Amino acid sequence: MRATDEVVEFIQATQLSDIPGDVKHLGKRAILDTLGVALAGSGDESVRILLETMAGRQGDSRASLIGSGQRTDSLSAALINGTMAHALDYDDVNESCMGHPSAPILPAVIALGEELDKSGADVLEAFLVGFELECKLGSAIGRSHYGKGWHATATLGTIGAAAACARLMGLDSKATEITLGIAASLASGIRSNFGTMTKPLHVGEASRNGVLASLLASKGFTATSNVFDHPIDFGQVFSEDKLNKDYLIESLGSPWDILTPGITVKKYPCCNKVHRTVDATLGLVVDHHPQPSDISEVVITIPPGEDVPLIYKKATTGLEGKFCMQFCVASAIVDGEIVFNTFETNRVERAEVQQLSDKVTVVTDESQIPVVIDTGGHVDVSIIMQDGRIFDRKIEKATGTPTFPLSDNDLQNKFRSCAKTVLNSNDIETAIAGIYDLENLRSTADLMHMLSVASTIDLKV
Amino acid sequence: MRATDEVVEFIQATQLSDIPGDVKHLGKRAILDTLGVALAGSGDESVRILLETMAGRQGDSRASLIGSGQRTDSLSAALINGTMAHALDYDDVNESCMGHPSAPILPAVIALGEELDKSGADVLEAFLVGFELECKLGSAIGRSHYGKGWHATATLGTIGAAAACARLMGLDSKATEITLGIAASLASGIRSNFGTMTKPLHVGEASRNGVLASLLASKGFTATSNVFDHPIDFGQVFSEDKLNKDYLIESLGSPWDILTPGITVKKYPCCNKVHRTVDATLGLVVDHHPQPSDISEVVITIPPGEDVPLIYKKATTGLEGKFCMQFCVASAIVDGEIVFNTFETNRVERAEVQQLSDKVTVVTDESQIPVVIDTGGHVDVSIIMQDGRIFDRKIEKATGTPTFPLSDNDLQNKFRSCAKTVLNSNDIETAIAGIYDLENLRSTADLMHMLSVASTIDLKV
Repeated sequence: MRATDEVVEFIQATQLSDIPGDVKHLGKRAILDTLGVALAGSGDESVRILLETMAGRQGDSRASLIGSGQRTDSLSAALINGTMAHALDYDDVNESCMGHPSAPILPAVIALGEELDKSGADVLEAFLVGFELECKLGSAIGRSHYGKGWHATATLGTIGAAAACARLMGLDSKATEITLGIAASLASGIRSNFGTMTKPLHVGEASRNGVLASLLASKGFTATSNVFDHPIDFGQVFSEDKLNKDYLIESLGSPWDILTPGITVKKYPCCNKVHRTVDATLGLVVDHHPQPSDISEVVITIPPGEDVPLIYKKATTGLEGKFCMQFCVASAIVDGEIVFNTFETNRVERAEVQQLSDKVTVVTDESQIPVVIDTGGHVDVSIIMQDGRIFDRKIEKATGTPTFPLSDNDLQNKFRSCAKTVLNSNDIETAIAGIYDLENLRSTADLMHMLSVASTIDLKV
Repeated sequence: MRATDEVVEFIQATQLSDIPGDVKHLGKRAILDTLGVALAGSGDESVRILLETMAGRQGDSRASLIGSGQRTDSLSAALINGTMAHALDYDDVNESCMGHPSAPILPAVIALGEELDKSGADVLEAFLVGFELECKLGSAIGRSHYGKGWHATATLGTIGAAAACARLMGLDSKATEITLGIAASLASGIRSNFGTMTKPLHVGEASRNGVLASLLASKGFTATSNVFDHPIDFGQVFSEDKLNKDYLIESLGSPWDILTPGITVKKYPCCNKVHRTVDATLGLVVDHHPQPSDISEVVITIPPGEDVPLIYKKATTGLEGKFCMQFCVASAIVDGEIVFNTFETNRVERAEVQQLSDKVTVVTDESQIPVVIDTGGHVDVSIIMQDGRIFDRKIEKATGTPTFPLSDNDLQNKFRSCAKTVLNSNDIETAIAGIYDLENLRSTADLMHMLSVASTIDLKV
């Protein structure tokens, strides 16, 4: 049987009622997290410019934007909400898809879901289907896809978003096949745009293109019906390796990728590579309450490669702080937390933090195996007090990784921290409860209303 | 100096007044031809479905659609007009860019030009700049780009469209650099979608993405400033070869690619691979007036590979007829022409044409070097009459190729044939005159009005 047929059958046949409960629960957690980081990202400069660009260049009121609740069309909603979801690089991570699995898919699903008046259960089902295909396709296409220069989040995300939309619309086999064929021709995004606003734009485009592909296919547009079987298949064009079709076919839904290997939810709104160091530091703070002014030195011992993306030794802005080990460690000690506000410029500039940051030394332990995109090996944090005491902690896996997933409470706290930039606290709790009960939510419009400042305004009236 | 800087300087510094007169003339011819095939394509099924999909999903009235004159926004206009321009695969061809150079660029330029109220001279200048970069980039990236599976028309077209838009907007160096960086992340389109509606969609997307990249960059969006110099540069991601930066830098504008090697304007609205055979057949018809009923046999002798895309031996529909040597030869003999209407189903079904088609034999001359994407070797057409006379003609290059370019009169006749599906004959002549005098046209809106059925309606009022 052709791989395309098998993939199409998975997309078509999967029913929410057949999906294991733990998978559904993880799906709702991922959705909560993605919507939270999108709310936090809704005020980002990348989003502001995109909104300005799309002003007068978008359609009517069948879909809406996260946060502002502004009415738009489903293509534009997917584009803008998708960009929001990745604007802060604070969204979830999955090894199979070599990137961020939820951000390209969810905005497509909710944009189309709102336009077509789909239920919360429909949204959850479609999201999980798209997420699963995206991840399994990532494993099947191989690491050379990323190595060649592709931003896998965007390319695989386009296919995942398209699959999710096809499921949401209930397209037949032929139209689902065509949706995937169109999506393969819309997939794009290269890694030289990392560290720029174009990186989150990739995700917005992936969402928009998933919606576009499914809409066109639903109306009889034509495309290859062999996207995973054509001589010029997705793997041929986008990878140096052959697409592992056997793996793709056999692995869909067994086990679900969101369960195994699972996802990493970023606990801290900063570079992934400081997360375990921050975890260990915060543990020492809780146990020993070191006074910043009494600290002589902080020594962070890392495996080779751990600090490749940590390109700042001293942070003068919040964005620099996110990629600065010294700043993050100092903030963790001073504040006892690393939260969204940690990276506000006036907090970055605090003398206490800056002085302590200067006392943080990062040492590479060459005896460890170098880390690349994974997080192998271990980190040691030593806080050396002026009185000679040494508080020391070794850590392998950060909180938020599949090994140590965030508790529901921690996950909700992250959402609260993100959402409070837009929503009031009552609405935040309503949104959390609503998303945890997503499969019983009547309509996507209700979900979007919960995420909109309009709900807060309504309350005040 | 970095290749990116050189490219940016070419985009920024090129002035219409510095462009040689013959290049400008060829540019206007290409624009006339592209607008003609877009008018003819405006009624295609691919466009109809796209219009239905975009209904309610597009913006206000700052740009318009070719043919209908329907108001929309510049992103949607570029998307839809770009799809029109390639819908019939009747648009021009260039070897350097391994595809169709004008169709992805012109719709972007006129959409943004109308929105920003640019003049005809601005449009011509921007079009030529984008066209030139697209073609030189095609030579620089190498044939493996196409070989890998990319639809070069779309990928290179995205960069060309973005460059054209940056020029049209008069962006500074930094913003032009960013425009190219964004565009590289939007470039997409794979060849397994050839022969489907998604192929023209690629071109529409390339146009839309060129507009989007330039708009975002103009407002301060960020992207790589090293699109041709980054370790993950455009060539690294999109080719198996290294980008030939020296060639790219040195060749821009010297000579202009539209002049050398030049473009092929398709004289007949059917597969390129029957063009020279049709030319030879029509020559025999003019010289000898063979009566179809008196013909015993027609023998077409071709080099190996000439008939690879000619997958129909007998045509039952117009679309099949475009890829059927037998049908095209029979129609040429019966009608003395191959025009747009040749491929209407009721004309395809004519008994006289079908009977003659059955008498056409295609023979491969194995002594010739196989042809692949080029048109080397030669074709022989022999019309054998029942009375024993044989009319024979050998041909190497078709009319419309750079070797035998269409005369201005033939080019205009092609435009007339295409445009009459939408415009009346007075308006057609006005449009031809206007486009030949493009550099003196006050505004893009005037150009669009000439191409709109609205002008015909105005006349009737």
